[in-house]
Amino acid sequence: MASTVKSKSDLFSWGELYFPVLSWLKTYSREDFHGDGITGIVTAILLIPQAIAYAMLAGLPPQLGLYASILPPIAYALFGTSRTVSVGPVSVAAIMIASALATPEISELGNPVESAVILALEGGFMLLLMALLRMGGLVNFISHPVLTGFTSGAAILIIFSQLPHFLGIAKPHCGFEFSCYFDAARQYNPITFAVGIFSIAVLISFSRPLVFFLKKLRTPETLIMAISKSGPLVAVFLGTLIVTHLNSAEANSVKIIGEIHSGLPKISLDFHISEKWRMLLPYAGFIALIAYIESVAIAKVTANMRNQRINANQELIALGAANIATAISGGMSVAGGFSRTMVNFSAGARTQMAMIIAVAIISLAVIFFTDLFEIIPKVTLAAIILLAIMPLVKIRDIAHTWSYDRADGTAELATFLGVLFFGIEEGLVLGIILTIAAYLRKTSKPHIAVVGRVPNTEHYRNINRHRVETWGNLLLLRVDENITFSNAGFIEDFTMVELAKKKSVKHVVFIFASVSYIDATALEVLENLNRSLKALGITMHLAEVKGPVMDKLEQTDFLVQLKLGQVFFRVEEAVYALVE
Amino acid sequence: MASTVKSKSDLFSWGELYFPVLSWLKTYSREDFHGDGITGIVTAILLIPQAIAYAMLAGLPPQLGLYASILPPIAYALFGTSRTVSVGPVSVAAIMIASALATPEISELGNPVESAVILALEGGFMLLLMALLRMGGLVNFISHPVLTGFTSGAAILIIFSQLPHFLGIAKPHCGFEFSCYFDAARQYNPITFAVGIFSIAVLISFSRPLVFFLKKLRTPETLIMAISKSGPLVAVFLGTLIVTHLNSAEANSVKIIGEIHSGLPKISLDFHISEKWRMLLPYAGFIALIAYIESVAIAKVTANMRNQRINANQELIALGAANIATAISGGMSVAGGFSRTMVNFSAGARTQMAMIIAVAIISLAVIFFTDLFEIIPKVTLAAIILLAIMPLVKIRDIAHTWSYDRADGTAELATFLGVLFFGIEEGLVLGIILTIAAYLRKTSKPHIAVVGRVPNTEHYRNINRHRVETWGNLLLLRVDENITFSNAGFIEDFTMVELAKKKSVKHVVFIFASVSYIDATALEVLENLNRSLKALGITMHLAEVKGPVMDKLEQTDFLVQLKLGQVFFRVEEAVYALVE
Repeated sequence: MASTVKSKSDLFSWGELYFPVLSWLKTYSREDFHGDGITGIVTAILLIPQAIAYAMLAGLPPQLGLYASILPPIAYALFGTSRTVSVGPVSVAAIMIASALATPEISELGNPVESAVILALEGGFMLLLMALLRMGGLVNFISHPVLTGFTSGAAILIIFSQLPHFLGIAKPHCGFEFSCYFDAARQYNPITFAVGIFSIAVLISFSRPLVFFLKKLRTPETLIMAISKSGPLVAVFLGTLIVTHLNSAEANSVKIIGEIHSGLPKISLDFHISEKWRMLLPYAGFIALIAYIESVAIAKVTANMRNQRINANQELIALGAANIATAISGGMSVAGGFSRTMVNFSAGARTQMAMIIAVAIISLAVIFFTDLFEIIPKVTLAAIILLAIMPLVKIRDIAHTWSYDRADGTAELATFLGVLFFGIEEGLVLGIILTIAAYLRKTSKPHIAVVGRVPNTEHYRNINRHRVETWGNLLLLRVDENITFSNAGFIEDFTMVELAKKKSVKHVVFIFASVSYIDATALEVLENLNRSLKALGITMHLAEVKGPVMDKLEQTDFLVQLKLGQVFFRVEEAVYALVE
Repeated sequence: MASTVKSKSDLFSWGELYFPVLSWLKTYSREDFHGDGITGIVTAILLIPQAIAYAMLAGLPPQLGLYASILPPIAYALFGTSRTVSVGPVSVAAIMIASALATPEISELGNPVESAVILALEGGFMLLLMALLRMGGLVNFISHPVLTGFTSGAAILIIFSQLPHFLGIAKPHCGFEFSCYFDAARQYNPITFAVGIFSIAVLISFSRPLVFFLKKLRTPETLIMAISKSGPLVAVFLGTLIVTHLNSAEANSVKIIGEIHSGLPKISLDFHISEKWRMLLPYAGFIALIAYIESVAIAKVTANMRNQRINANQELIALGAANIATAISGGMSVAGGFSRTMVNFSAGARTQMAMIIAVAIISLAVIFFTDLFEIIPKVTLAAIILLAIMPLVKIRDIAHTWSYDRADGTAELATFLGVLFFGIEEGLVLGIILTIAAYLRKTSKPHIAVVGRVPNTEHYRNINRHRVETWGNLLLLRVDENITFSNAGFIEDFTMVELAKKKSVKHVVFIFASVSYIDATALEVLENLNRSLKALGITMHLAEVKGPVMDKLEQTDFLVQLKLGQVFFRVEEAVYALVE
């Protein structure tokens, strides 16, 4: 009946451990290919306009988004443990890139394209370093409320960043002067604005209304999926069509993407390390962290639904490789996109083959259709971004969290407001600090009980809950948690308060049955406590100390310091020896 | 037999709670005064040269140290809960002040005296704010290894900062160019150096050798204490004597303190808030934090030895008041000094009256003897600082911690090296981050067990440790810890791994008997897990949910989301209902 969690080397063979692609490739079937093929087409249709739009959002030329959609998904397919995550440019990473590139000391160094590539490369190597240090689990420490507060704040920043494109005006530099924004908005370009509204109308009608209509017509589910997800592509097509059919004066007033390098990305390892690298490093770290958390979150959700497993540490390797792949092919930072992965998943992707098929389609588009991409109006891309980003603003979630847990709600609100008013990284750091502080505060009160003997047994129970025997010269304290820097002080105080209440005590016995770890701070606190007790003429003893804890204590001279104090195997023995 | 920790209002009356002075003043006896009187004299003898020396260490005129020894101990006596802590200028705070004042953007604003006073004022208000937010416990989160690494690093910085005084040279500005330091040292002033060596000899001979000699002569203990602690005062006296008896050319080459304002400090509330305040704020925060941690640590040690209690939150108020008192009287930041408090304690101080007597003596000295202080050679003060600081360098402690606990050892070493090479605040922050990261990592693996029924009982135990009954369609999981952002992911993964091992499972029952808290992140993870299980055709149930947890869950729609899943009162009921 006994069963233990098997080590990873039992669950996967060596090769499959580092190249999870092998685990699905060896059983890949024709049916799998059918599911993946259709999904690949749907995802490509969605990914092309998104890639261009997110490059624009990051303030970069469109090819950085397109290149980021070619090699990285292939790298992820090789190393990633999720079969359905769609890796490529994502909105939150894009706004973080924009924010990094806009900092004065970085923007004055010029060449934003180079900076974006360095960000991706540094981020990739940081993820690999985290994998090496087996830090996959550490990202659990960004709590969901902080993450939601962060994405909500970032989404609002994204929406504001797109408004100038939507109105066809230059980005105003107004700071906190609101009238200045209104003055700027009043210069709006009516044709651009009209194309924007039209694009939004197309995008909205392609989601629910069209699905409803197609269902009425009994269209097959997969076709409905493919058609409804082509909304962005249709919006781009129609937007472009309108602009190209306007007369030249009107057309000129609507801003288009402009020149795009055609052809596949060129692989280059030609990086020149400079001061810029050091300055970009912290930003690269934040982008990589958020990219990783987003990717793993969505990977877990989709994997669990099919009872597949995600290996958090292997994901660090996969995402690190994907970011290095984007950098050497001249693309922007990548992550697993939430909405795109859900599309991939629900369209029926069975393996990463779906993404490889999407990559093939995107590659063809990059080779043959860049001329067409050049005349896409920016306002249509802004409309695509706006509608993709809207669902990320979850103000109600903040109220919801607040009502469930005050500490989490505070952290969520602080992160949200921090992102909006102090900056993207500052808001995130604020949220993380608040969460951890609240957590440490909670864990600083460990459970500790004064115990006594249940009459006629050898059981010892909490004196507050059970009718038990106690003895005047003896205080039995059961510590129910590992003793660390965060709670050692509480245990010391608790002991002294109990002693103040019971002046007759000559022996204190700490029952360590549930203690499997005592850190250096806690050891020092126990040493101090022992000294204090000695000064009061009280002897400290231990009982039921676990093997590993005993081994550790024997390395130190704590047991020597106990002097008259003993270590009892069972509480019963302590009572027998100490009761007068 | 039942006993609960009494609320603070039971332990103290209202007045005593906020003015702990009342608790000892009402029973103050002639004997108490006898003990406190002698101690006050000893402490004053020690404090005067220390106050001047630590002001020099901070790069400030001597009166800032003297003023910091007058009002702050009185403020602490009123509000503090320790009867023996000696509040005044301390070495670590002094080097932190020096470091803050030396940052280019602050030093270029000029007027370091004003800056030092602002640092104390801001620190004082921050401590009061922390008291208001009841954050007294949060300082437990700077672990002892980090604190030791920090003070060791700071002590080495202090030693290096005093070497120029010792050699009678100007402070060299060499950066990392070592030959430059040797060139500077070669310019040393032989007379200054000789006075320095002589001062060290006096200080050393006044500690152990003199005590040994006096004990041979059967001198009373208190007199030995008074004489041995007057080492610094004698060193100052002899050093001054030598310098004044040299001929003028030689004397001029030995640097002396120079002009000191005579008379008591003037109380002033005339502060002008400027940009400087904002720039000094983070430094003030760090100084206040370290000052508080040091003070509470020494207060606890001495209080425990006499079975007295320290109230961490009230200490925030007392130390905040002491720092505001120093600021309005034109002094530098203060804290409870470790060595001085131990002197105070072992000389027999019974209450803060000892410090009030010391204050009276210091006040007389400030009124009548400032002329004498002006001709104290700086090298003698440097010698006092060197000998006071040496014991704080605990390199062996780092090795010791390392052998006991790798994570704590890493944090201690990183803090130590961080302070030396990156800066005082940077090193401290690095250490705190490493400790918390290691802690979170440790807590991310909660105890969770698959349980089964002990045959013919209603007891459920870990299947790996006991011979128990299990059922093919049922997985019983007992979670033994509160579920939070730091461990929710592990619980999810654990569940999925168990399900992968046991494909026949249709019902998962989570036993929450030990769970008294589920945070917002954990709730979301459970919701996701429920969705994943549903997709696999498995139903999630709960059992033995505690009242407060149930109340919380009922606020959310989690119980609705469970749908077919039920909440069982006892595990037995779940087995009865679910086993087919």
